[in-house]
Amino acid sequence: MEEFLQKAKQSTSELLKLKSGEKKEILLQMADAIKEKSQEILEANAKDMENAERSNLSSALKDRLYLDEKRVSAMAQSIREIAMLKEPVGRVLEGWEIDNGLRIEKVSIPIGVIGIIYESRPNVTSDAAALCFKSSNVVILKGGKEAQNSNEAIAKILQDVLVKNSLPKEIIALLPDYSREGVDKLIKMDKYVDLIIPRGGEGLIRYVSEHATVPVVKHDKGLCHTYIDKDADFDKAIKIAVNAKVQRPGVCNAMETLLVDYAIKDEMLLKLYEAFKPYKTLLKGCAVAREVIDIQEATEEDFHTEYLENILSIKVVDGVDEAIEHIRKYGSGHSEAIVTENYTTAEKFLNAIDAACVYVNASTRFTDGGVFGFGAEVGISTNKLHARGPMGINDLTTYKYKIYGEGQIRE
Amino acid sequence: MEEFLQKAKQSTSELLKLKSGEKKEILLQMADAIKEKSQEILEANAKDMENAERSNLSSALKDRLYLDEKRVSAMAQSIREIAMLKEPVGRVLEGWEIDNGLRIEKVSIPIGVIGIIYESRPNVTSDAAALCFKSSNVVILKGGKEAQNSNEAIAKILQDVLVKNSLPKEIIALLPDYSREGVDKLIKMDKYVDLIIPRGGEGLIRYVSEHATVPVVKHDKGLCHTYIDKDADFDKAIKIAVNAKVQRPGVCNAMETLLVDYAIKDEMLLKLYEAFKPYKTLLKGCAVAREVIDIQEATEEDFHTEYLENILSIKVVDGVDEAIEHIRKYGSGHSEAIVTENYTTAEKFLNAIDAACVYVNASTRFTDGGVFGFGAEVGISTNKLHARGPMGINDLTTYKYKIYGEGQIRE
Repeated sequence: MEEFLQKAKQSTSELLKLKSGEKKEILLQMADAIKEKSQEILEANAKDMENAERSNLSSALKDRLYLDEKRVSAMAQSIREIAMLKEPVGRVLEGWEIDNGLRIEKVSIPIGVIGIIYESRPNVTSDAAALCFKSSNVVILKGGKEAQNSNEAIAKILQDVLVKNSLPKEIIALLPDYSREGVDKLIKMDKYVDLIIPRGGEGLIRYVSEHATVPVVKHDKGLCHTYIDKDADFDKAIKIAVNAKVQRPGVCNAMETLLVDYAIKDEMLLKLYEAFKPYKTLLKGCAVAREVIDIQEATEEDFHTEYLENILSIKVVDGVDEAIEHIRKYGSGHSEAIVTENYTTAEKFLNAIDAACVYVNASTRFTDGGVFGFGAEVGISTNKLHARGPMGINDLTTYKYKIYGEGQIRE
Repeated sequence: MEEFLQKAKQSTSELLKLKSGEKKEILLQMADAIKEKSQEILEANAKDMENAERSNLSSALKDRLYLDEKRVSAMAQSIREIAMLKEPVGRVLEGWEIDNGLRIEKVSIPIGVIGIIYESRPNVTSDAAALCFKSSNVVILKGGKEAQNSNEAIAKILQDVLVKNSLPKEIIALLPDYSREGVDKLIKMDKYVDLIIPRGGEGLIRYVSEHATVPVVKHDKGLCHTYIDKDADFDKAIKIAVNAKVQRPGVCNAMETLLVDYAIKDEMLLKLYEAFKPYKTLLKGCAVAREVIDIQEATEEDFHTEYLENILSIKVVDGVDEAIEHIRKYGSGHSEAIVTENYTTAEKFLNAIDAACVYVNASTRFTDGGVFGFGAEVGISTNKLHARGPMGINDLTTYKYKIYGEGQIRE
């Protein structure tokens, strides 16, 4: 394992030598190769699907694992889009001159070696590899065991393109050890690995955060709230609440809890009840809400739960202050929204809420790298440092200072 | 302990409510209080000095611990300077509008609760407290046991100012448990603590990095190199080499190893030998260097050593490529310099070296927040992520996205 990581680290210097145009060209070759060799990927995927069948994987997981011609084409297309992103390395972030004439430039550089730990979807393999290559990072991929054949087939195709271009295949590496011990070693090798990005269930993320000595950028849960203030435009409020819940309930930026201002509870709750009816959303509420509409009880545990399903907890709160307090206690720092026409209330909410994304009068569903205009997305970071919220390719870089002198010494 | 940290976390919301001018005013009150109550600080410090005497602390450590009127005045002055820094919170870092009219702003915000673990110098207590307060962060200070009385006296004075301004004293907190177990708990409380900054010896930093679940920004060692290329201006080269070593050998941005191009070794080494003579620098060299000048042998271990003393290892290398290779192997990613008049060689070095600061034709001694123009300095980060190199007050912030809508929902 150590030898493997050492090779990965060494190949960072090969990557640094590539010009922007060369990286683009190689990525386009990779996209073509994925397309041309789609049969190999589909055969490997068929093996994974057979195993999934035998081990009784849930149909949701099987759907995430499954590949067909269309999905493989989409993988190739995604690599092509990443190829065309603006070069993330070498951006001059700041620059200035100091008293003695030294010229200082803060310049974006690759992070180095990035380990990405993820689950089922095989397209993460090609996406993550392309994003890391574009940003001149060596990537170590550790996908789910259930997708091992698919991932190996994809990685092999990408590595063949590297080798054809006289580059070490370690630039896109699969972790050789798929076991928990393999992960355990990887996240402790801060000598060789510069960043770990875990994407997956809470258990995995907790484990990695607790045991890693390598810095971690988590892609954790989203327990998102929408607060409808007494000064809300009722039509906007209902449209936004419904959209935030039902447009795609299984994702991290979907709303899990709706907070309604006590001052408007009677009218608002009745309207919400009607609005959610056609979507068959399972509504649960606090005692006050249940006096107005006939819904299930929401327990303390419900308010702590990221359903990722068409279920919604509702709580009546006493104005924006209690809403802020509730979010502070139960929120996961992902995406939070207020619906109000009141300027001062909106400002208060925007400033007091500590989350990656805080919305006024919009659905939390917009928290997304593509929507934000970042191009392909690494994920949604729930870290507070380095990268927060939608993580674009620029977040796969760090910086160094270049200092240009003409013989200056310190007095 | 958990209760203590919970209180610290809770007081973050009080800090958020303060306007920039209020923070400035309170910091100026703190500076005045330090000055007015200098007697209390000096008395506490006398106790620490007595204990230091009894426990046979080294004279270097005693010097770092010692306070007099002048040093206490400097502490007050430093708080005053921090008070006048440009407000670090609320900077709009980026802003744009997306297709559907949503307006996105990326805005700097406090990190939250920051734990700072440090050693002897009591002025770090007031500096760190002021920097964190100015950036609206709650700080948990864990100083050295040998400075406990001084640190408690300083913290008490600052806390009294907080209380006088109706703020919770937990905004500037001293860790109640000074033992290793106290530190151990602190660095694992990611529920309440957002960042740990360890400043001190390698052992401490290694321990914190290995055991923390809270993100860590290290202030680790600086094993800095200067490479004198065959195309160097010899006068500049000698001035820079001497300055980087002798101007203040005990600090992290001082040079530890000098690399000399083989092509100029004879003339350059003789000149260096003469130039270092008046400073009584202990020179150690590789076998090739020792054929030219009569100096001690530098072992493999020497090239791995941060002397922090007036000692220099010298190695003759075969041009810029071997210099880069050597630095990659032995460098600590802090500050590295090349002396050359050759444009292409300079560019090669600037791009290939992965360090926080890479210099052309200047002394590594410039790696410093004050010199860079950041104002008071949190330290020199050897992290690759979040903050790298000289860490100014802006590095005590992170960001969130504020998104302004008018009822937008996702289709």
